[in-house]
Amino acid sequence: MQLEKYKIDEINQQQLADHKRKFDYVAEGISNLDDVLTKLEAFNVAIPSWALGTGGTRFGRFSGGGEPGSLEEKIEDVGVIQALNKSSNSISLHIPWDIPSNPSAIKALAAQVGLRFDAVNSNTFQNQKDQKYSYKFGSLHHVDKAVRKQAVEHNIEVIKYGAELGSNALSVWLADGSNFPGQLNFRGAFQNTLESLQEIYEALPDDWKVWVEYKPYEPNFYSTTIGDWGQSYLLASKLGQKAQTLVDLGHHLPNTNIEQIVSLLLMEGKLAGFHFNDSKYGDDDLTVGSINPYQLFLIFNELVEGMDARGMKHATDIGWMIDASHNLKDPIEDLIQSVEAIKIAYAQALIVDTAKLKAAQASNDTVQAQEILQQAYRTDVRALVAESRLRAGGALNPLATFRALDVRGNLIKERGATTVATGL
Amino acid sequence: MQLEKYKIDEINQQQLADHKRKFDYVAEGISNLDDVLTKLEAFNVAIPSWALGTGGTRFGRFSGGGEPGSLEEKIEDVGVIQALNKSSNSISLHIPWDIPSNPSAIKALAAQVGLRFDAVNSNTFQNQKDQKYSYKFGSLHHVDKAVRKQAVEHNIEVIKYGAELGSNALSVWLADGSNFPGQLNFRGAFQNTLESLQEIYEALPDDWKVWVEYKPYEPNFYSTTIGDWGQSYLLASKLGQKAQTLVDLGHHLPNTNIEQIVSLLLMEGKLAGFHFNDSKYGDDDLTVGSINPYQLFLIFNELVEGMDARGMKHATDIGWMIDASHNLKDPIEDLIQSVEAIKIAYAQALIVDTAKLKAAQASNDTVQAQEILQQAYRTDVRALVAESRLRAGGALNPLATFRALDVRGNLIKERGATTVATGL
Amino acid sequence: MQLEKYKIDEINQQQLADHKRKFDYVAEGISNLDDVLTKLEAFNVAIPSWALGTGGTRFGRFSGGGEPGSLEEKIEDVGVIQALNKSSNSISLHIPWDIPSNPSAIKALAAQVGLRFDAVNSNTFQNQKDQKYSYKFGSLHHVDKAVRKQAVEHNIEVIKYGAELGSNALSVWLADGSNFPGQLNFRGAFQNTLESLQEIYEALPDDWKVWVEYKPYEPNFYSTTIGDWGQSYLLASKLGQKAQTLVDLGHHLPNTNIEQIVSLLLMEGKLAGFHFNDSKYGDDDLTVGSINPYQLFLIFNELVEGMDARGMKHATDIGWMIDASHNLKDPIEDLIQSVEAIKIAYAQALIVDTAKLKAAQASNDTVQAQEILQQAYRTDVRALVAESRLRAGGALNPLATFRALDVRGNLIKERGATTVATGL
Amino acid sequence: MQLEKYKIDEINQQQLADHKRKFDYVAEGISNLDDVLTKLEAFNVAIPSWALGTGGTRFGRFSGGGEPGSLEEKIEDVGVIQALNKSSNSISLHIPWDIPSNPSAIKALAAQVGLRFDAVNSNTFQNQKDQKYSYKFGSLHHVDKAVRKQAVEHNIEVIKYGAELGSNALSVWLADGSNFPGQLNFRGAFQNTLESLQEIYEALPDDWKVWVEYKPYEPNFYSTTIGDWGQSYLLASKLGQKAQTLVDLGHHLPNTNIEQIVSLLLMEGKLAGFHFNDSKYGDDDLTVGSINPYQLFLIFNELVEGMDARGMKHATDIGWMIDASHNLKDPIEDLIQSVEAIKIAYAQALIVDTAKLKAAQASNDTVQAQEILQQAYRTDVRALVAESRLRAGGALNPLATFRALDVRGNLIKERGATTVATGL
Repeated sequence: MQLEKYKIDEINQQQLADHKRKFDYVAEGISNLDDVLTKLEAFNVAIPSWALGTGGTRFGRFSGGGEPGSLEEKIEDVGVIQALNKSSNSISLHIPWDIPSNPSAIKALAAQVGLRFDAVNSNTFQNQKDQKYSYKFGSLHHVDKAVRKQAVEHNIEVIKYGAELGSNALSVWLADGSNFPGQLNFRGAFQNTLESLQEIYEALPDDWKVWVEYKPYEPNFYSTTIGDWGQSYLLASKLGQKAQTLVDLGHHLPNTNIEQIVSLLLMEGKLAGFHFNDSKYGDDDLTVGSINPYQLFLIFNELVEGMDARGMKHATDIGWMIDASHNLKDPIEDLIQSVEAIKIAYAQALIVDTAKLKAAQASNDTVQAQEILQQAYRTDVRALVAESRLRAGGALNPLATFRALDVRGNLIKERGATTVATGL
Repeated sequence: MQLEKYKIDEINQQQLADHKRKFDYVAEGISNLDDVLTKLEAFNVAIPSWALGTGGTRFGRFSGGGEPGSLEEKIEDVGVIQALNKSSNSISLHIPWDIPSNPSAIKALAAQVGLRFDAVNSNTFQNQKDQKYSYKFGSLHHVDKAVRKQAVEHNIEVIKYGAELGSNALSVWLADGSNFPGQLNFRGAFQNTLESLQEIYEALPDDWKVWVEYKPYEPNFYSTTIGDWGQSYLLASKLGQKAQTLVDLGHHLPNTNIEQIVSLLLMEGKLAGFHFNDSKYGDDDLTVGSINPYQLFLIFNELVEGMDARGMKHATDIGWMIDASHNLKDPIEDLIQSVEAIKIAYAQALIVDTAKLKAAQASNDTVQAQEILQQAYRTDVRALVAESRLRAGGALNPLATFRALDVRGNLIKERGATTVATGL
Repeated sequence: MQLEKYKIDEINQQQLADHKRKFDYVAEGISNLDDVLTKLEAFNVAIPSWALGTGGTRFGRFSGGGEPGSLEEKIEDVGVIQALNKSSNSISLHIPWDIPSNPSAIKALAAQVGLRFDAVNSNTFQNQKDQKYSYKFGSLHHVDKAVRKQAVEHNIEVIKYGAELGSNALSVWLADGSNFPGQLNFRGAFQNTLESLQEIYEALPDDWKVWVEYKPYEPNFYSTTIGDWGQSYLLASKLGQKAQTLVDLGHHLPNTNIEQIVSLLLMEGKLAGFHFNDSKYGDDDLTVGSINPYQLFLIFNELVEGMDARGMKHATDIGWMIDASHNLKDPIEDLIQSVEAIKIAYAQALIVDTAKLKAAQASNDTVQAQEILQQAYRTDVRALVAESRLRAGGALNPLATFRALDVRGNLIKERGATTVATGL
Repeated sequence: MQLEKYKIDEINQQQLADHKRKFDYVAEGISNLDDVLTKLEAFNVAIPSWALGTGGTRFGRFSGGGEPGSLEEKIEDVGVIQALNKSSNSISLHIPWDIPSNPSAIKALAAQVGLRFDAVNSNTFQNQKDQKYSYKFGSLHHVDKAVRKQAVEHNIEVIKYGAELGSNALSVWLADGSNFPGQLNFRGAFQNTLESLQEIYEALPDDWKVWVEYKPYEPNFYSTTIGDWGQSYLLASKLGQKAQTLVDLGHHLPNTNIEQIVSLLLMEGKLAGFHFNDSKYGDDDLTVGSINPYQLFLIFNELVEGMDARGMKHATDIGWMIDASHNLKDPIEDLIQSVEAIKIAYAQALIVDTAKLKAAQASNDTVQAQEILQQAYRTDVRALVAESRLRAGGALNPLATFRALDVRGNLIKERGATTVATGL
């Protein structure tokens, strides 16, 4: 199904007066209003192809209804999100969960609903049917050269799929690690990973990047070969300029100061981008902003400031993607909530009074520095975000509109109540 | 020094039009406006006597200027805060840091600036001059009966001081624990603690409570004898109805769901109250709401809901106190920021649409339940808090007013730049 | 397959001289040698029926070969372990993964290989085929009475299966919790859980216990309704004497002092027993003793001391069970390593010089207390454990014997290389 | 006081027969016995000058008796330790706590008791008397160039003191960080730190190194400017070959895999050395090996293997130092226990069957790899360590000998019971 714009507009119309009141109120206090609205309007977050189905844990998975059963249907779902929020204009494919059998047709289909293809993701953490070697003991870090080769070739194949679809980045997350002391020689594993990544790096088209993700644990529970930002940075700096570090918000040890890492990576020109989600314990993959929205704001505060400092005019120089697991919620609703939380954090960061903040920092006025950030954070910027969406042709309130139009009901009617999407 | 009301009013006057615009805007969206304002106006958070000086860490302490050098000056400082925010009408004494030599005079002095005395706090984690036995290896849990007796007697003495000042609760935090496996017999330590607390319990006046605080670590780094809420609850339930569990927000292991603990303690009638602060790593004792304001809101959400469920009409049935360490900030400014953050969280909790939330919970509409909480949290309630303060005769903006009136400058003039307050 | 004793004996024979040398050496230093050997010989740890297959994570599962395809084959596997280590004389069933269609036949089969049935485990964290209501939003804590009823009835059914097999305990682990703030009313969830457990409690045969497990997170990532020992204890104390708290070593927040919890539960008569495993990050379910063997020793130190203090003559008054996930290792080998680690820790705890330790504690001689524990821990007690096994008719070295007899090779021949056992 | 060798020998004599029995037993199973003993004998761990006094926490400090009141007395204390364990042949000075007023005299005094001077440590986390600028808001990272300059000059002064004493490394630990979001510009702080370190680097003598320590939190509780190994590595690699990363075991977030970091730093030629201690929660600064001795072994396992791989013949290429806080124990006893734990871990690592381990790793035999490490770890190597000490002229049992000779009693007699050493 495809959302017709007039239906969205109809619902917007009912909310317009109330919106206008709220927008006018908040706008009055924003000195850089045009800049904020322009940036919000231009901002997009990619939707991963595996996020349209119900997620699960090792203890089970409770599927919802109307899940997309094909890549085409996944594109359809992202199209729905994009129609509503006008901030999800790309899809990030996971190979082999979503191999496009006919790339040009898929590309055209995506274009129809206003979508392009973001980074492509390889998968060497699961065995695929008819795969010669097992990834039980890792892939790019494997002690056996033959296994590494197989994994390298898979990555190169993924690049090819991506190239056909217009992607320009390969996102690599490795589950490679160990469960027990002694299982692995850390240096050997690191060197093998580097060598494998170098072979993949060689295969990158000129305008491509490779994004090297890190994660401290899970699915391995003693060591992970690319376990923290330092290890990813070390690899990326040895690989070269096309290699950068990808930050998944859930991939950190307890209490990590993520915003500081973001700031330093940006400073070094090594920040690839983000996998957004939220978490309380580990890689919980919850809805963005549902657990610690202030941290999300602080990250965006570093981004806005750091991009300015680097003269990056567009947020598009950084890869933005949701990476959550929708275990209990309707995936589309969850994605809508996530993008909304991201844009709220971005809007709050955009209205920080940076001149005043710099002055407070220069005089070590800690109280004042905190006040300035909280002044932005405590501002109710929802009407700003809504206004930017309205101007872009989206829904004032995407979630309410999704429900009002009974999109899920229609999807269940179309697809049935028991389809299960590929993914975790 | 004492803040004259007319000076505060003058500054309020300048901000009144802007405030009115903001208040009118937010008020329009609040259905239970009167209730919210009444509750905010009635709400008070105690200021501990040791919080008026600069705090430190084991690595050092960087004193500010104009620190209060006596209990009288501490009362003066709390009086300043109360004059500004009208939500700090009590002071919580720490014995022996602040022994009132003339209780009735001190009580009168406090009353003059609108203050009463909240819970009194004992100290058996440091040795005092001329103390017979050392607390190096603990106090109420000590293997030596004589040490326990000394510590029990100190607590009973603290109750006496408190009774003379009109307090009605004894707050007990024990550093007792061990640094190494083998040092302690856990059961023996627990039984000794119970026995000691029972002796203290016996000495409580009829209308008093004893608040049993818990903390997982620091200053002991292997075990703490009252280490978590379960251990505190176990003691409190063995002691009797006058004993309850005190929750210090910083006294938890990483990732603890504090709001759930609060909810259950309230359900069991065992929630004594709070020591408010914020933290990222351990017992960091940072300004309330400076690190994770959403968590603070979630705690208040449980409190508002739980107090309603228990038919508790007044928030005064629970003990509220700041317990932070102002290492880098002006202590008074820090306290003002903390109380403000608490009241914002309380206001947000008060505007949660509980009927809708119950309905969402009853139908497992997780998306909607989140939306309802976020709707309240994302609302900019600062004008509500300011309005309640205005009605109570305080400052629209306590921090800005504190600076505008150059209170610290005056205190330094009065007291000098090198005074050091008692405390940590 | 069944291991013939003479084959084990043959291999023992080759190692006997070396063993004797080692045993004689270590025995010389042990004053309570007979007691230690008797206790080690009597000690048994149950093997869960789901632990005989390869485990997995949410990212996938890499099956090994020769996995048991039926309950009968699982009993066979536990029989192999028991023949080798003589410390695994019981099996703990998980319903519905291993429903015994013919209980008396199953019981007889188990008896043939020297096994009895330990606690039975219910499962309300997954939906079963043809189940009327879904557990997506919980089971015993569910807002809907009908769902709770279904879950209660399942537990009662599990008790019936257990009764037929000679079990005398029901082990309840609830995944019930929430992923997002607002999703759940904590008090409501707790009260529903209590009410459900009361109904199950009513159905317990006279000589049965119900073991209430706790876990802070996973598969729910915001709250778990029985999240810590305090919550489990609260339920168990409200339920009555037959209800106790089960400690799974992996079910704690980072840095929890587990041995202290164990000590207090034992003191209160509320320690049901253990699910053994090891972990570095969360509920990693790694081989027992593979990450932090000193912690395991400290737990056993509390147990030995606490059981003595309560006059518990036999370790059989406490439930002991492995609960690990064998993602990378041969499950049988993993279990053999786990039981060995447990017995080593137990042996070390048995040789602690308790009289000297008490004296050190009584005089706060922290240095000496540490020395005493380390003296026991640093002792190489493997020959003691081997001797106790030898006396019981098992293998001097179970793991090496398992490999020497190529048990896995034979199992693969019998069962094939691609069988997949029920479980996670 | 100075320990006379004949007294140590007398006590050794009494224990010799028992030692011989133990040593002969363990020696029989060690194939590389000579190599192990030679390496153990050559191994030394520096004692920091501030570790000879009782440590404290922010809540207080309970001094013991006979604490050294001068640098001379501290050297005396380290001399005692060295006489006993023959593995503490150097002292690491902390400036300005222990400024040598007469370097050549101090050097001679140290030489008299067999000591040389290890790395010198600067202190810019506390204000010193008559210091022009405050370090309240940091030192090398400070926003104010004048403060940075002062801190740089202090470091250069420390180098000078060190050069006079024969040290060849400067150890830099910075408390610099922030307590609140907004307080700091992370990039600015990093760049200032780099610039300051470059100035210090320029002042290093040719054969010197600078060791850059990292720590995630405390005394700052929101961010630390050199917060993790990645940040330290980034600085060290920008500085040049003389700069390396120093690993303090307590300076990590919960659950960090420290041994992996050690392995990678060693691989990159950037491992400066260690500050040894143990911890359960944060930077607890407990006795080495008292909480998690297996982790200590795993770290040494990486070191032994990595040094071999780099062709490092001598452990002396790496800086080894204790850095603990002796809050409850006699500092000398604590240091003796710490060095013993380190040498036990080292001995265990030296007897790992590396050939077999490599083979197990090459075939992904995880079970066997674990067995090999545990085989070494479970071996009681204490007699090996004692033998190496005996050969070097030390005490078979340093701690027991320390007590038997009543060293502390004598120190109290000499120095009094109330002296307080400089330090934390």
